[in-house]
Amino acid sequence: MRLTPSASRLIRSARVAHLATADSSGQPHVIPICFVFDGKSFYFAIDEKPKRTTKLKRLKNIAENPNVAFVIDTYDEDWRKLGYILVFATARITNAGKTHGAAIKLLRRKYHQYRAMALEKNPIVALQPKRFVAWSSEPRQKTSVDIKGHIR
Amino acid sequence: MRLTPSASRLIRSARVAHLATADSSGQPHVIPICFVFDGKSFYFAIDEKPKRTTKLKRLKNIAENPNVAFVIDTYDEDWRKLGYILVFATARITNAGKTHGAAIKLLRRKYHQYRAMALEKNPIVALQPKRFVAWSSEPRQKTSVDIKGHIR
Repeated sequence: MRLTPSASRLIRSARVAHLATADSSGQPHVIPICFVFDGKSFYFAIDEKPKRTTKLKRLKNIAENPNVAFVIDTYDEDWRKLGYILVFATARITNAGKTHGAAIKLLRRKYHQYRAMALEKNPIVALQPKRFVAWSSEPRQKTSVDIKGHIR
Repeated sequence: MRLTPSASRLIRSARVAHLATADSSGQPHVIPICFVFDGKSFYFAIDEKPKRTTKLKRLKNIAENPNVAFVIDTYDEDWRKLGYILVFATARITNAGKTHGAAIKLLRRKYHQYRAMALEKNPIVALQPKRFVAWSSEPRQKTSVDIKGHIR
């Protein structure tokens, strides 16, 4: 299963994505996240003080409803250059273990800002993609890909 | 009711926001939107061909569930400068009338790109804020404001 080269470039180069969660009543919530992609899943860290993480709405929502969506896009005043990748995913909160440690390593490789931050005691959220929707303004097209296995 | 000067500046200067909707099953969806704010409500246009608008997931979700959220933020590699404004709102789709026409005018004033586009036959979505949450990384703070009346 392969993404188009432009979709793959956008995922690899983007510094920020926007994550939408919803609580059990269906009220959406959305925030910017710094993320990393290992070819299979996406990961983001919680860099709040550990005591405060239980209060975070994004984590409460994921605990209530693991179905999330996030979008990766860059804005350009030349609207012929607009495009986005929308990813529907299942979110899972991890607090320790192999996946947790590997994700912190990847995040620190991508974002030097994380190297000085104590992320080890904080949750990492893994986002397992279920479906990608790639849209571009010119040529105006939308492609939808259901995920099975690795993405290249 | 007033927003802080920095929150107000961010709303006025931002070219893009990210809108989260959810369908009746609670599955979130998120896309970038170009928006305008008239001091009371936010508006965005649908610039798809009119025949195709009924297929758009953002509009289907709003019809099923008018509770939405959107976030306005700008990314900076200096993470001391990060901040966002998260707005919880009620969405309403309009197809004609005074509000519809006024929103198109405001959108065209802000985005020259819309001046050459035939938006008149397309829906405009009005987003009526219920609550603002403003977050900044330094000083690290979160403020929450419930909306009554105009915002300055």
